[in-house]
Amino acid sequence: MSAWTLDQVAQHNSPDSCWVIIQNNVYDVTDFLPEHPGGAKIILKYAGRDATAAYVPIHPPDALDKNLPIGKHLGPLSAEASQILTSNQKNRKKTKDELRVEEAAQKKPPLARILSLRDMEVVARQTLSSKARAYYTSASDDEITHSENARAFSRFFFNTRVMRPVARCDPSTRILGFGSSIPVFVSGAALAKLGHPDGEANITRGASQTGIIQMVSSNASLSYSEIMAASAPSQTLFFQLYKHANDSIAEQRVREVVDLGYKAIFLTVDAIVAGNRERDIRNPWELEDEEKGIPTYWSGGDAPEQEADGMGTAGALIANDDRDMTWEKTIPWLRSLTKLPIVIKGIQCVEDAVLAAEAGVDGILLSNHGGRQLEYSLPPLEILYKLRLKRPDVFDKVEVYIDGGINRGTDVIKALCLGATAVGLGRPFLYAQSAYGTAGVVKIVEILRREIVTAMRLLGASTIDDLRPEMVNASAS
Amino acid sequence: MSAWTLDQVAQHNSPDSCWVIIQNNVYDVTDFLPEHPGGAKIILKYAGRDATAAYVPIHPPDALDKNLPIGKHLGPLSAEASQILTSNQKNRKKTKDELRVEEAAQKKPPLARILSLRDMEVVARQTLSSKARAYYTSASDDEITHSENARAFSRFFFNTRVMRPVARCDPSTRILGFGSSIPVFVSGAALAKLGHPDGEANITRGASQTGIIQMVSSNASLSYSEIMAASAPSQTLFFQLYKHANDSIAEQRVREVVDLGYKAIFLTVDAIVAGNRERDIRNPWELEDEEKGIPTYWSGGDAPEQEADGMGTAGALIANDDRDMTWEKTIPWLRSLTKLPIVIKGIQCVEDAVLAAEAGVDGILLSNHGGRQLEYSLPPLEILYKLRLKRPDVFDKVEVYIDGGINRGTDVIKALCLGATAVGLGRPFLYAQSAYGTAGVVKIVEILRREIVTAMRLLGASTIDDLRPEMVNASAS
Amino acid sequence: MSAWTLDQVAQHNSPDSCWVIIQNNVYDVTDFLPEHPGGAKIILKYAGRDATAAYVPIHPPDALDKNLPIGKHLGPLSAEASQILTSNQKNRKKTKDELRVEEAAQKKPPLARILSLRDMEVVARQTLSSKARAYYTSASDDEITHSENARAFSRFFFNTRVMRPVARCDPSTRILGFGSSIPVFVSGAALAKLGHPDGEANITRGASQTGIIQMVSSNASLSYSEIMAASAPSQTLFFQLYKHANDSIAEQRVREVVDLGYKAIFLTVDAIVAGNRERDIRNPWELEDEEKGIPTYWSGGDAPEQEADGMGTAGALIANDDRDMTWEKTIPWLRSLTKLPIVIKGIQCVEDAVLAAEAGVDGILLSNHGGRQLEYSLPPLEILYKLRLKRPDVFDKVEVYIDGGINRGTDVIKALCLGATAVGLGRPFLYAQSAYGTAGVVKIVEILRREIVTAMRLLGASTIDDLRPEMVNASAS
Amino acid sequence: MSAWTLDQVAQHNSPDSCWVIIQNNVYDVTDFLPEHPGGAKIILKYAGRDATAAYVPIHPPDALDKNLPIGKHLGPLSAEASQILTSNQKNRKKTKDELRVEEAAQKKPPLARILSLRDMEVVARQTLSSKARAYYTSASDDEITHSENARAFSRFFFNTRVMRPVARCDPSTRILGFGSSIPVFVSGAALAKLGHPDGEANITRGASQTGIIQMVSSNASLSYSEIMAASAPSQTLFFQLYKHANDSIAEQRVREVVDLGYKAIFLTVDAIVAGNRERDIRNPWELEDEEKGIPTYWSGGDAPEQEADGMGTAGALIANDDRDMTWEKTIPWLRSLTKLPIVIKGIQCVEDAVLAAEAGVDGILLSNHGGRQLEYSLPPLEILYKLRLKRPDVFDKVEVYIDGGINRGTDVIKALCLGATAVGLGRPFLYAQSAYGTAGVVKIVEILRREIVTAMRLLGASTIDDLRPEMVNASAS
Repeated sequence: MSAWTLDQVAQHNSPDSCWVIIQNNVYDVTDFLPEHPGGAKIILKYAGRDATAAYVPIHPPDALDKNLPIGKHLGPLSAEASQILTSNQKNRKKTKDELRVEEAAQKKPPLARILSLRDMEVVARQTLSSKARAYYTSASDDEITHSENARAFSRFFFNTRVMRPVARCDPSTRILGFGSSIPVFVSGAALAKLGHPDGEANITRGASQTGIIQMVSSNASLSYSEIMAASAPSQTLFFQLYKHANDSIAEQRVREVVDLGYKAIFLTVDAIVAGNRERDIRNPWELEDEEKGIPTYWSGGDAPEQEADGMGTAGALIANDDRDMTWEKTIPWLRSLTKLPIVIKGIQCVEDAVLAAEAGVDGILLSNHGGRQLEYSLPPLEILYKLRLKRPDVFDKVEVYIDGGINRGTDVIKALCLGATAVGLGRPFLYAQSAYGTAGVVKIVEILRREIVTAMRLLGASTIDDLRPEMVNASAS
Repeated sequence: MSAWTLDQVAQHNSPDSCWVIIQNNVYDVTDFLPEHPGGAKIILKYAGRDATAAYVPIHPPDALDKNLPIGKHLGPLSAEASQILTSNQKNRKKTKDELRVEEAAQKKPPLARILSLRDMEVVARQTLSSKARAYYTSASDDEITHSENARAFSRFFFNTRVMRPVARCDPSTRILGFGSSIPVFVSGAALAKLGHPDGEANITRGASQTGIIQMVSSNASLSYSEIMAASAPSQTLFFQLYKHANDSIAEQRVREVVDLGYKAIFLTVDAIVAGNRERDIRNPWELEDEEKGIPTYWSGGDAPEQEADGMGTAGALIANDDRDMTWEKTIPWLRSLTKLPIVIKGIQCVEDAVLAAEAGVDGILLSNHGGRQLEYSLPPLEILYKLRLKRPDVFDKVEVYIDGGINRGTDVIKALCLGATAVGLGRPFLYAQSAYGTAGVVKIVEILRREIVTAMRLLGASTIDDLRPEMVNASAS
Repeated sequence: MSAWTLDQVAQHNSPDSCWVIIQNNVYDVTDFLPEHPGGAKIILKYAGRDATAAYVPIHPPDALDKNLPIGKHLGPLSAEASQILTSNQKNRKKTKDELRVEEAAQKKPPLARILSLRDMEVVARQTLSSKARAYYTSASDDEITHSENARAFSRFFFNTRVMRPVARCDPSTRILGFGSSIPVFVSGAALAKLGHPDGEANITRGASQTGIIQMVSSNASLSYSEIMAASAPSQTLFFQLYKHANDSIAEQRVREVVDLGYKAIFLTVDAIVAGNRERDIRNPWELEDEEKGIPTYWSGGDAPEQEADGMGTAGALIANDDRDMTWEKTIPWLRSLTKLPIVIKGIQCVEDAVLAAEAGVDGILLSNHGGRQLEYSLPPLEILYKLRLKRPDVFDKVEVYIDGGINRGTDVIKALCLGATAVGLGRPFLYAQSAYGTAGVVKIVEILRREIVTAMRLLGASTIDDLRPEMVNASAS
Repeated sequence: MSAWTLDQVAQHNSPDSCWVIIQNNVYDVTDFLPEHPGGAKIILKYAGRDATAAYVPIHPPDALDKNLPIGKHLGPLSAEASQILTSNQKNRKKTKDELRVEEAAQKKPPLARILSLRDMEVVARQTLSSKARAYYTSASDDEITHSENARAFSRFFFNTRVMRPVARCDPSTRILGFGSSIPVFVSGAALAKLGHPDGEANITRGASQTGIIQMVSSNASLSYSEIMAASAPSQTLFFQLYKHANDSIAEQRVREVVDLGYKAIFLTVDAIVAGNRERDIRNPWELEDEEKGIPTYWSGGDAPEQEADGMGTAGALIANDDRDMTWEKTIPWLRSLTKLPIVIKGIQCVEDAVLAAEAGVDGILLSNHGGRQLEYSLPPLEILYKLRLKRPDVFDKVEVYIDGGINRGTDVIKALCLGATAVGLGRPFLYAQSAYGTAGVVKIVEILRREIVTAMRLLGASTIDDLRPEMVNASAS
């Protein structure tokens, strides 16, 4: 197979014959067009051309191997063609957004000045590309549930105890039997490469250094094996499973991660269709307008009429997922594939918590996907509170976790008082790795550890077991 | 009858003899002055002159035929006179407001960028004339009830269910036995020509293309027959009846729409007198000040003392309506005229919902007229909630609808969970047809359909019947 | 007695001998200094000089006759001296505040553009002198109770009834047996001359023209007889009694107003000491700084140290009032002086409402003095609601009124639904007479009448008796 | 021992041999480095140099005597060296913050214009150094509890009584048997020298002049004897004990203050570890950036990486305090040392209030350390309210006080109605002494006294005993 010239590739620029260049290799994606979860249109935009810059940050390296038959891997570009692309890329005029990001990166404060998770978010919002910021921060509709998730913590106050010995204070715990230095884990957060070239591996290394557990998303931008490779020998990784509608494709994914050594499966059930994340959908238009110097998209009078695909980045990731999962069918199917602990991620009411416990899973993660799916879903902390009130027996049958809206050590403590085994955080780790790489991830854990220990001591608790329901009041008055 | 000159008309410029020109025809309105619902003063402003520009956007074409004896139709202007008026109109200096509207129309974003009903409203507010904007957006007093209508939805959260098969999801339903593609109808919204020259017909065509039902207002700016003519053969139209104080005039209106083929009568009972819509009343003063370059009406020191008629556009429309309707008298009277389903529009408490059901009507529309009538009337969603709680039997006797404050698919779903058969929207359709004509109306339905289907799936519902009261919580905590 | 020269007067400029000129007459106030309710210091500021400009707006014309023995009325200035004062006054450089007021008065909108009580307040705030604005608008401490008074109305919503005959709608009622065109009266509001040279007479004439009742304050800036003189023959005036600590001085005041023909006595019990009205106290400093061009009083580095008297205008008015009133002593004392109906103004809890009813008075005015006295006193509407709930029998024994926070016709209706016979308004009438004289007062009543009638009709009530407790809900949800 | 030259001292500039100059004396602090509560790093910054400016405002004069063996007091600088330091200090370029403070001090309003505690705070915030402002105002995390402390007062309204004799009104009371002119004491507030060179003595003198009691902090910036020396013969001083982890060091402190004549011990139990006061920690960075002209610390791109010690000023003060206090061990230990009344400062729930009463202490101070320790600790007023509701018997066994969030006389009255014997204020006195010295402290008490007496009279209370639980409502509605 000879090497390709740019002219040769350029002739395959239509739905009838669509070739693209990715990292100096040529691929025939004609037959793949209708299967692409992100839709054919976005591929056709690069038909006959180099798609590397758009492709790399949101696809793991093994995506082509897994999804495109080997016969469609047409081989490398000629050296001359590769040189031209490299040169084009180098001489390319930077966009306004790229220039903004470069400037922000230079002004970034030293990591020692990051005192809180919110400090980290501020830096990340300034230094992220517009696309990454839109994907990371977006939530459904008017983002009510997203903000309610956090606000829910603010109605719970402490019943603070004094005169208890707390000089020695240990915040460590076990999650599904695996040790964790603090009762916090990394909840599945996808597309880390959008924020930092090392992607999810930053989180893996940071988790290793601080002794916490990472849950890796099906939609990670590194391959599952790359992430496992970045981990330390005894490090615990969990896997967040998005189940493909096709059972055998789904099975393949489960078998892969079991073989790689992931230690638990978090089956995601709250994202069977795309949430309506307008911030994410609007982002490309805003960038386009910004380049043209049009102040906001509202004034884009002469912008060409263009059809929105109405999904954004998030929609594309789950387009082929299973929308017909049931307790009766899906749990036994998964149990048949693996002996690993199974956790249901995305429980949003007491009734389903009970059903999950009855279905014999090992844990439930109360979550509304960070407010990114059903708008007006209840805040996880509220569901935890209701569950503790109405069905305390569930806590004896399964481990219960929550994620969504956690910003402070006191938030973690409140959830644990109400019965959670641990809490998950997603966005904060994406922000941290984007802004400072692995060091940022370590910093987040250090901040949380300091805040958790301080809160435990001032609350009169020296171990995680000391945190009890009677230590929280459901309001300030 | 010879054609009139402008001089001839100009001599009839007083209450004693008042002629006006409308679309190049001359009318003697002297005797009509005291009967004009909008008051004599506004007509006298044009006495002896051309009134076309003020008249056309707020009157249906058959208004003169219905209200002015044929003997007062004095015949056409002379060709020369018509030419002068046309030329005057062409050479007329545009007002600042007209120039603003023209500029805004040019900057309008492409329809594909409209992601939500609020996006549509933003465009409409920018592109509407000041008069139309004031009429469409205004509400009573301090607009508390108007904003509470929407805010009421924000206190209800979902009891979200997972692990239910929703790959197939059907949002269609039936309203009074007529099919509707989604559980949404167009609630009576008048004076569409203020926003777009095609007026209500935009909505009719958009409803046809998307399979929803339009309720046509007694105060439409097109005639009832023009709107029916714009509809597709099998399309369902309902009629919103404002009952004239004079029973025989009212009867005439009912018989007309029954004959035209309207399929149900929505008797409006919450607008027997004009609500206090200050935004609407203030509008002409503000326009006047704007033309003079006076920043706000407060600084209008040298503005001539002028008497406000204290009604605004809205008041004029209902000045002759029946203020003495009762259950005992009015329902039997209406039943005697037609076999069509009768719905009471404007029920605002549980007690009246019960009375309506006992009066044997077919449906009730819980509505406070979009916050445009009695300030501090309860939000319809709250009345729906109370009705479900206290008198669930009413839902067995009549279909229950609500309108007011609905902006998102989740709002629709909440109302249906609480027992509503369907929900009405008014302003959003006025905004949409004003900004983009028929295509805007279609867009609104597409957005709602997408939002409704997404919410149903994420909530665990695949048909309208799956939406149950236990799926909503009355607050986030 | 010869006429005085300015030099002669000027020699009496100390506490030992203190003369002042008021309207070209000379008074020896040396002995009066310790008795002056506003303190000696403010008089000494004018010792030996003309005090007219400071004196007139806040004292009724008969104040000197009532308070200074005739022997201390030293007689007129010489013609020459009077001429000099007049000339000085004319040539005096206007203060910045006076210039601002003049400019604002010229830009005042025509009265027809005033649609609501808040519109009127906006105009008044712009056109009032700084001193008047401070006195009229000020309330206690952080003005929480002042704003809660109004906010209390916003939690009550209507249980709106439809299909009731309301074409005929009559908002008239009787208060203590006296007719009133609407269920609204003017609550005691003092120092009207601060806002308009005609003072309280504007209100008297406006009340006469619109058929409502005025309650006249003990601290009116016109004499009680001047106000009575401004009234129409059959017009009803009530009297708001501030009881002097000295019973015989108090008796003199009661006998005067009974003789003048006032029809009821409203004994004020909530203002026995001055409320802490910081806005009022700060005002002179702010004016001083403004004249000097110092932006705010905080930056007044070189301002001379001066002692605040800590009372403001309000404190001065009641310095000698009775702080030892009791049910056992004060009511019988007042009953012994007059057969007029007695109303207690300033009841602020259910317990005292009961005590008042047991004490045999004719009415109670639930009031916290417009938030001007005890900060964190409950809003009158809330007390009315509690009274209706806990002691409905009180409404059978006494008429119940409220004042404070009323801005709209719907506010009036809510109070009447909960059992009030009528509601009082104070500040709105002060604002109206200040901005537009008598016509402003008439306008306020017209606005309220229109708003009340509209609300009654839309609520399904055609008479005041139709307004019932079941027509209000205690919240929107 | 000869006098030292600067060169000699400069050679001891490392952890191995660390000398510092304080007020022209030389100290060898090498061995003390690991014991310094504020950490070694801050001392090493001045190793071999003059540390006076940093040392003096936050250490009492006897700190060196108490903490550094006499052998390490190396003796005075040479006269020449002292002269050089003095000259250096004089010629030193002032920082931007110092210049700001100087300018603000010149613009300070006269004390007579301070009407409220908030007025005082505004002046203090403007005139304090950035460091002092950060230390005084900072609170934990997001400062929620700090603001809730104050907000808690705003939900309690008065059940105002009228017609009660209040001409005579006495706000005086007794605290632990000691007379107090009003039911207010100075709650332990440390580091007063940061705000004013006279430090805590300003408060002592002001308390004496106004007849209230001062509680002196273990962390005062004057020595306990200096403060006692500033007091009047019969003046009452209480002592706020921070217990050292080493019992014998703690005992030494207790014996010192008992011998000095302090009248009660307030054992502080809510500050065993440092609260997370970000404002305080951030302060030095912000100052550094300000000097460099960098607008905010976020843009500090080229700022050198530096390690935060994560404690701020507050953390340093308590680094060696006892974190293992218990009811069983600590109270008997303290009782064995002194017969003085013991009060527990920092009770934050009903359960601990009961335990304290059972432990036989004399009083409890409900306090969350002004929101400076555990974020989301309940507001003291709420705990007082719960205690009154659930365990009224506790009030019979111990005196109960609260501090935190008190700004007005009405706040004091609310606490007393609910059962508090008196209330403590901390920050207001720090602000007052910083801005105006002793006169500022006197002013604060005068304001509170006036506000308390006014509120008592308007509420119908003439003595402290008249303030009863039934006089407060737990909300406005």
